[in-house]
Amino acid sequence: MNDEQQIRDLIATWLRVSAEGDISQILPLMAEDVVFLIPGQPPMRGREAFAASFAGWNGKFRLETDCEIQEIQVNGDLAYSWTKLSVTMTPLDGGAANGRSGYTLTVLRKNADGVWQIFRDANLLSED
Amino acid sequence: MNDEQQIRDLIATWLRVSAEGDISQILPLMAEDVVFLIPGQPPMRGREAFAASFAGWNGKFRLETDCEIQEIQVNGDLAYSWTKLSVTMTPLDGGAANGRSGYTLTVLRKNADGVWQIFRDANLLSED
Repeated sequence: MNDEQQIRDLIATWLRVSAEGDISQILPLMAEDVVFLIPGQPPMRGREAFAASFAGWNGKFRLETDCEIQEIQVNGDLAYSWTKLSVTMTPLDGGAANGRSGYTLTVLRKNADGVWQIFRDANLLSED
Repeated sequence: MNDEQQIRDLIATWLRVSAEGDISQILPLMAEDVVFLIPGQPPMRGREAFAASFAGWNGKFRLETDCEIQEIQVNGDLAYSWTKLSVTMTPLDGGAANGRSGYTLTVLRKNADGVWQIFRDANLLSED
């Protein structure tokens, strides 16, 4: 399986396991020292910070996503992708759904085991 | 001069010539098929789209920037950087200054002439 296909599979897996809400399946998809960038917030650094943020909303919403990969380019152990992404979070207690859409730019690295992981991620989604 | 230093110089030059407002000096710093991603807007693709956007505000504002490079990593002809950036735009006609700050994630490529250029850029700045 070539690198680009592995990265496509990583993105698909990321979206699937995020919706399923199993943090133990999500964390291996990112490097230990991952950084997530979001407008208006300080950088979120490392798996533990991601897990803490995820725990804050997991189990309270149904997550639905629609992701169109715009581009993947690979150079050795470094790659990037950008996607057009829509996310709908529907409160399980019956409140109104919240929709966000926009683009992401992600840097990926192949780790020592030859597995691609999310390494740096910029999430530019804004409210619909 | 090594790749990382060339990229540091590119970022410094980018900020300087953007403030000076000379589009002919800005455009060579980006690939012809550059893509800029900004929250709430469609992707801005290519030098000509950048030049048209730049012409819309150039000459009307004094631009001041403060940029702290957080990281640069290079792998062959592909690199990325992320920065903490503050931008203040002060209307030359005397209106109130507009401040934006946040982070950027940029993918860079070394072109056939061995020159690093901005290739994919996510701008996550929000209003102060």
